[in-house]
Amino acid sequence: MTRDQAKPLLNYISNHVNLSDSEEDELIAIINYRKYLKGQYLVQQGDICKHSSFIISGCARTFFVDDKGQEHTIMFAIEDWWTSDIGSLITQSPADYNVQCIEDTEVIQFPYDIQEALYLKIPKLERLFRKMLERAFVASQKRIVRSFSLTAKEQYIHFKKQYPKIEQRIPQYMVASYLGITKEFLSKIKSQLATE
Amino acid sequence: MTRDQAKPLLNYISNHVNLSDSEEDELIAIINYRKYLKGQYLVQQGDICKHSSFIISGCARTFFVDDKGQEHTIMFAIEDWWTSDIGSLITQSPADYNVQCIEDTEVIQFPYDIQEALYLKIPKLERLFRKMLERAFVASQKRIVRSFSLTAKEQYIHFKKQYPKIEQRIPQYMVASYLGITKEFLSKIKSQLATE
Repeated sequence: MTRDQAKPLLNYISNHVNLSDSEEDELIAIINYRKYLKGQYLVQQGDICKHSSFIISGCARTFFVDDKGQEHTIMFAIEDWWTSDIGSLITQSPADYNVQCIEDTEVIQFPYDIQEALYLKIPKLERLFRKMLERAFVASQKRIVRSFSLTAKEQYIHFKKQYPKIEQRIPQYMVASYLGITKEFLSKIKSQLATE
Repeated sequence: MTRDQAKPLLNYISNHVNLSDSEEDELIAIINYRKYLKGQYLVQQGDICKHSSFIISGCARTFFVDDKGQEHTIMFAIEDWWTSDIGSLITQSPADYNVQCIEDTEVIQFPYDIQEALYLKIPKLERLFRKMLERAFVASQKRIVRSFSLTAKEQYIHFKKQYPKIEQRIPQYMVASYLGITKEFLSKIKSQLATE
């Protein structure tokens, strides 16, 4: 891919670690640009996840479908976020989750098979991913805490704060599924909030 | 601390990355051995977390107390596990969680203020922590999924599998609080399972 296409990723990286020009060139040589259409999958439940994807534009949803056919939304990702099924990626076993594009989505992909070699070559990238994982882990623990301690209404208010630009972009049933409530209950919460 | 005291940690590390003798010596020079008594805290909600702790013996529980005074259990940690409030550690802001010893507990502590310098000196340790974080993040996401898709009974069965050696060591109310149910409901589940 071209340096120009990689610009959003290089900007993102430069907020966390400083790569030299030659390190940037090495990186650009191994990452790939890919455009997915709305409805297409970056990862499908049951497949083996082969990439970490950095989103340049668009929006993707991570969800899984349980034995009863029920969808559960794990997370959303938009511009400047990463997405993948990390469990599948690090064990190279079938993915638990689907990552599906809610909009046409442009990504930069890191192929997993060269990721460990890349870390050895450019340790600053291992630093970047270590730091990203720290934050992702903290956010994930906080979500567990919220599910314990907040009401559905409080969780919805938090969701709006956490994803301020996303709510207009996604169907309401996905927001409900992220909160672990029904679409009807979400409507009720929203009309309650509107009258407060 | 002595090489002998560090043995459990060095064994653990050798399962993931290979340190040279001199790298092990550098590590030993900066980590600390500490014994906590049952009931003492490794981290207290509101304090700034200063260490990552590797447990040599004993058992610690991570929990938080919400505005209503209700305790919520996030995780347990026993021999060969790590514990800390990572959110507090990486931002050096007040901890959201308590980490309290359920038994007398021996730990090896990595001081946070030298952790980044340590990674620069021994990149293999950054690799170790990156890999640990990947697994911790995956486990945390799976817990969110279980809370969505499994009944309390199924979650309890999973808990027994995940923590096979812990259940006998901790009070039942902590297990209930980990599962997000009441002590009474847990008793009911257990007597149901006993008759199956």
